[in-house]
Amino acid sequence: MTTEKIRLVPLGGLGEVGKNMMVVEYGDDIFIVDAGVMFPDEEMFGVDLVIPDTSYLADKKHRIRAILITHGHEDHVGGLPYVLPMLDFPPVYATRLTQGLIQVKLKEHKQLEQAIVNVVQPGDAVTLGECLIEFFHVNHSIPDAVGIIIHTPLGAIVHTGDYKFDYTPVNGKPADFATLARIGNEGVLLMMGDSTRIESPGYTPSERVINDSFDKIFANAPGRIMIATFASLISRVQQVVDVAVRYDRFIALAGRSMINNVQMAMELGYLHIPKGTLIRVEDLNKFQPEQVVVICTGSQGEPTSALTRIANQDHRSIRIEPGDTIILSATPVPGNEKVVNRTINSLFRQGAEVYYQAISNVHVSGHAAQEELKLMLGLLRPHFFMPIHGEYRQLLLHAKLAHSMGVAEDHIVVAEDGDIVEVTTDSITLVDHTTSGNVFVDGLTVGDVGQIVLRDRKVLSQDGILMAVLTVDKETGQPIAGPDIVSRGFVYMRDAEELLESARLHVLESFIGLNGHASDWSFVKEKIKHTLSEFLYERTHRRPMILPIVMEV
Amino acid sequence: MTTEKIRLVPLGGLGEVGKNMMVVEYGDDIFIVDAGVMFPDEEMFGVDLVIPDTSYLADKKHRIRAILITHGHEDHVGGLPYVLPMLDFPPVYATRLTQGLIQVKLKEHKQLEQAIVNVVQPGDAVTLGECLIEFFHVNHSIPDAVGIIIHTPLGAIVHTGDYKFDYTPVNGKPADFATLARIGNEGVLLMMGDSTRIESPGYTPSERVINDSFDKIFANAPGRIMIATFASLISRVQQVVDVAVRYDRFIALAGRSMINNVQMAMELGYLHIPKGTLIRVEDLNKFQPEQVVVICTGSQGEPTSALTRIANQDHRSIRIEPGDTIILSATPVPGNEKVVNRTINSLFRQGAEVYYQAISNVHVSGHAAQEELKLMLGLLRPHFFMPIHGEYRQLLLHAKLAHSMGVAEDHIVVAEDGDIVEVTTDSITLVDHTTSGNVFVDGLTVGDVGQIVLRDRKVLSQDGILMAVLTVDKETGQPIAGPDIVSRGFVYMRDAEELLESARLHVLESFIGLNGHASDWSFVKEKIKHTLSEFLYERTHRRPMILPIVMEV
Repeated sequence: MTTEKIRLVPLGGLGEVGKNMMVVEYGDDIFIVDAGVMFPDEEMFGVDLVIPDTSYLADKKHRIRAILITHGHEDHVGGLPYVLPMLDFPPVYATRLTQGLIQVKLKEHKQLEQAIVNVVQPGDAVTLGECLIEFFHVNHSIPDAVGIIIHTPLGAIVHTGDYKFDYTPVNGKPADFATLARIGNEGVLLMMGDSTRIESPGYTPSERVINDSFDKIFANAPGRIMIATFASLISRVQQVVDVAVRYDRFIALAGRSMINNVQMAMELGYLHIPKGTLIRVEDLNKFQPEQVVVICTGSQGEPTSALTRIANQDHRSIRIEPGDTIILSATPVPGNEKVVNRTINSLFRQGAEVYYQAISNVHVSGHAAQEELKLMLGLLRPHFFMPIHGEYRQLLLHAKLAHSMGVAEDHIVVAEDGDIVEVTTDSITLVDHTTSGNVFVDGLTVGDVGQIVLRDRKVLSQDGILMAVLTVDKETGQPIAGPDIVSRGFVYMRDAEELLESARLHVLESFIGLNGHASDWSFVKEKIKHTLSEFLYERTHRRPMILPIVMEV
Repeated sequence: MTTEKIRLVPLGGLGEVGKNMMVVEYGDDIFIVDAGVMFPDEEMFGVDLVIPDTSYLADKKHRIRAILITHGHEDHVGGLPYVLPMLDFPPVYATRLTQGLIQVKLKEHKQLEQAIVNVVQPGDAVTLGECLIEFFHVNHSIPDAVGIIIHTPLGAIVHTGDYKFDYTPVNGKPADFATLARIGNEGVLLMMGDSTRIESPGYTPSERVINDSFDKIFANAPGRIMIATFASLISRVQQVVDVAVRYDRFIALAGRSMINNVQMAMELGYLHIPKGTLIRVEDLNKFQPEQVVVICTGSQGEPTSALTRIANQDHRSIRIEPGDTIILSATPVPGNEKVVNRTINSLFRQGAEVYYQAISNVHVSGHAAQEELKLMLGLLRPHFFMPIHGEYRQLLLHAKLAHSMGVAEDHIVVAEDGDIVEVTTDSITLVDHTTSGNVFVDGLTVGDVGQIVLRDRKVLSQDGILMAVLTVDKETGQPIAGPDIVSRGFVYMRDAEELLESARLHVLESFIGLNGHASDWSFVKEKIKHTLSEFLYERTHRRPMILPIVMEV
């Protein structure tokens, strides 16, 4: 069967940053690229994780040929343990390190038996359904990152994944120019390109520039050195290891995910640490301060991470001492600035020397800046273009960039999550919209926390709650116990006795005139709610949630 | 009486950004520099404003000679309406524009009659108690900003206020080098210097560089132009007015504080708008799109501001049309990045062209970068140095900068809010610590929301609340109505019937074995709380606030 159309349905990562997930349909075949999570923002009260809404796929599970993974970052693989069971465990394809990171997750979720994760090498090609899938190497802030080409009978679709061009990467090779140029020559029907860093002019510097900064810091550090970075940034860990070895320092690891990832990366051959160099964090004190380096988690100020515990004097075995040197080798993810700054302040306050991105070259981005985005567009010369991975303004700016490089305006679609885009050999069109959005993981459950629960949490967080509880006589409808007024998060009850006593009287007034049997308690409750609400706002200018509870005996 | 010591007691702005307030004591005299507010961060649930804790001054009110104001930004004057009554309305000294901004506040709080605000000119000197107070002009992102010199019999204390050096300011003059150099020559005992921008190398560009960007944008804008900036940034408003006049555009104002400030600044002669140029926002549609400019509030994504309403299609008279050009002439204050990005995305989505700092030179900072900080230190050559205005890391970096310029290490003190610093002619010492911190304004009340209420709001925001309400027989101690289980913000109750029914049964179990009269209800409540907490955590991995309410009849 040949088909005239390809369908693209982004379920995450378009119009937002995080939980990347792209559905590509050709004929009977469905390919999914990535299945990421997003971390909740401050308006998603109490939510632990956010995953894509996959209801669009509910009646199409049998057509899913594969979930193709570009790399092992949380916003690309973190959704797998939730999405896989919903989709009846379609096979996953990933490079070796990525597979290692996925297995750690599947193990935690006890899914190792059901899930199938196939390992591919960059450069491999796999036939699935009517399509040939090709994986090509790109540079990113994690090794083993790939872009994906889906060769459909209608033409080639290129998904860049997250990428940058690094001519002198710390491990691995530069991005696979040969394949990109070949594909560009063969013809690209549609390119989907990472837009994360479209606002930055020029080129993203090579990972290698960090070596110089590390060298300078190591040469001058009088005591211990502790470096926090992303646990998945294996190449950065390798850089630290190399400079540590150069300066005759032993290496200790702190933080569960750092320890797990380093171990896995060593086993898979992605990280090389000379024998005898690794020591246990518990043994740090057996060495002189100038003999050790600690590589740890906590570059984002995560509350339970190693560096945050160290900063809060809450770590099992490490306390800051004057002479310590700390490096935060990462940029705060938007929204984390405050907690990261809090960590830095606290470390400085305890006498450490602290190096961080604002004042020192200790981190580079993993995403392509404008000139690299142009390079990718120039290599692929796509017929159609669809920007991916970014908020709306980033997608739009990337679209404008593509247009400035010669892609016709009606060959570009700026789509967001849930949009359904159809591509033929001579058109790209936004044709429809499907269910999409945020599914919340909160505690053990997925999806049961929705807008109503969140709205209640928001109200509760602003002004708290006030309950008016009373027991009434079934016969007379009159109160025989209470009203008791109980509040939390509204006022400090001990200091507000007069206010709460007045509130009690206002509740009682709601019963005046209610003669005999009051069958309609919802009416009475509404009256109590209204009366209290007005009274409390007048007195405090606050609007706590008001909950009247009436019990009949 | 001569005294050997000067006391410095920062009550706000040291170790944090915002609510600046510095107490300077010499002999019987107390001078307060600034009285600002801070906007609540995301952990101060439901709080409207944060002001400094002034309890240190409670028994010293009679010694307060003046509150000296450096400039009219909220973090320097916003606390006045709350602090003035607490301190029995000591006289305030401020420059003319600053006084104008303060009066607007005092009027809102109905304090115009009690408050005394004396107007000073930059260059003025006033004798108060045993000291001579001098005001010197500095550049900042608001006109009429000054630094303050307190000439005590022991020596001169210089408070820089917020400042930068702008050789070509848009209105007003460059900072008062003559006075700074003179004071430096006469000898400065102690300098307190703004540390806000210590992390930025080089110089902060002149306000004038923005003209070029505006010019380019105006020259190419096909339709309406809307520019959002801080309502207090009168010089920026003047720049927009000038370029608007050059391009024959009429000017409309949107946003209450923009309208008020522009009017006040025009009356005081700080803003010049040619007659006939101002139009009402309601009349915008009577003009061609290319004939108008709107200057509006909302550069920080504030929910009720003009630009946010426009972006949300919620503004009384402005809807975005394709062809509109929007300029956000401001940097997001840390913490506001997400809401500002949301505004930008939304404007782009509706077809506007949007210029903002990440992609265009449409804003410069109001604070001195490293080279300017050095210039100030070089001009004043202080004997002692104390960094002000910044989080701990910024204060520390500023201290290091001063040390690198020759100030001896033991002549520098890095103090934070509440520290008491004593200065003699030959020493500066941190001697003690007093009460300081955050006083919360929430609704009508100041200070009644404390840690307990905030902690409850936090718990409520995370996992909500679950109440178990029952009526028991006074005689038997056994339930005769309920337990009723009511929850908010925990689970969606309609979908969780089985869970809540199980919770009900768990509550009832707490009564088994309680024979006859149970006088100790607190024991029963604890038992219910404990049982429910365990059960709910096991089932959901959430920890809602649990509130058992028992009524006796």
